[in-house]
Amino acid sequence: MTARTIEDVTTGETHRTAAFEITREGAMAYAARFDPQPMHLDDDAAAESFFGEFTASGWYTLSVTMKLMVESRPFGDTPLVGVRVDGIRFSKPVTPGMTLHAESEITDIRRSGTRTDRGYVTMLVRTLAGEDEVLRQTWTVLLPAQIE
Amino acid sequence: MTARTIEDVTTGETHRTAAFEITREGAMAYAARFDPQPMHLDDDAAAESFFGEFTASGWYTLSVTMKLMVESRPFGDTPLVGVRVDGIRFSKPVTPGMTLHAESEITDIRRSGTRTDRGYVTMLVRTLAGEDEVLRQTWTVLLPAQIE
Repeated sequence: MTARTIEDVTTGETHRTAAFEITREGAMAYAARFDPQPMHLDDDAAAESFFGEFTASGWYTLSVTMKLMVESRPFGDTPLVGVRVDGIRFSKPVTPGMTLHAESEITDIRRSGTRTDRGYVTMLVRTLAGEDEVLRQTWTVLLPAQIE
Repeated sequence: MTARTIEDVTTGETHRTAAFEITREGAMAYAARFDPQPMHLDDDAAAESFFGEFTASGWYTLSVTMKLMVESRPFGDTPLVGVRVDGIRFSKPVTPGMTLHAESEITDIRRSGTRTDRGYVTMLVRTLAGEDEVLRQTWTVLLPAQIE
């Protein structure tokens, strides 16, 4: 696939990633390194926590979503370079055994006001377990523009 | 330290974490798992990329920031339970050798409108290399409230 530019993408364009199964081991390995809180590390502590059960760190679900998006290459050879992320909402707790995928939709495309070689694409990225949304966020990513 | 409640915290309260050095190995290990793009994995590919050099994934910097915040325990025994994250801005590229820390400031505190046992704290979280901001974001976290 070629490297897509902002001229190649359209508002309303949707994209669906592959799936990824959340395992206790994967979620715990992330938490041990980056979010070492009892509810993400230990079943007994998790039972007494706010969620009442072992849950994956929200940052693990965000990291998994990035992995799914990168591997599905929505812009072909053009890398995913994020400039901002807005409106992250942890809609539902994520627990081991859930199989997640992400669905994205382009909501806005604009050229840079200062640089003719680039533009910005805004997209709503939802992470789902089946039909249940567990996470949503809005990405603004940089795409190259064709030089005229 | 005890578990802090929304009655214990004040708007304007600031907090500074310990420091963490970004290494090529740490950044590459994260990227291999969650953001497998050439500019985060390979020096030669990185040299030809948008940034012109090897850079850490923004999601790695976010994960490191969570680690620093969790380990510094701004709310004592009360865990960091995020309900939303807004306004993530990748202010500067993060490269190996940078030593990062985070600084947070509470900007808003409010009780839940529906649950008397909880409230929400909004905080600006900035990640810095020395005095240079590399990342900023706004967290809304859940804190327990004293039941009267």
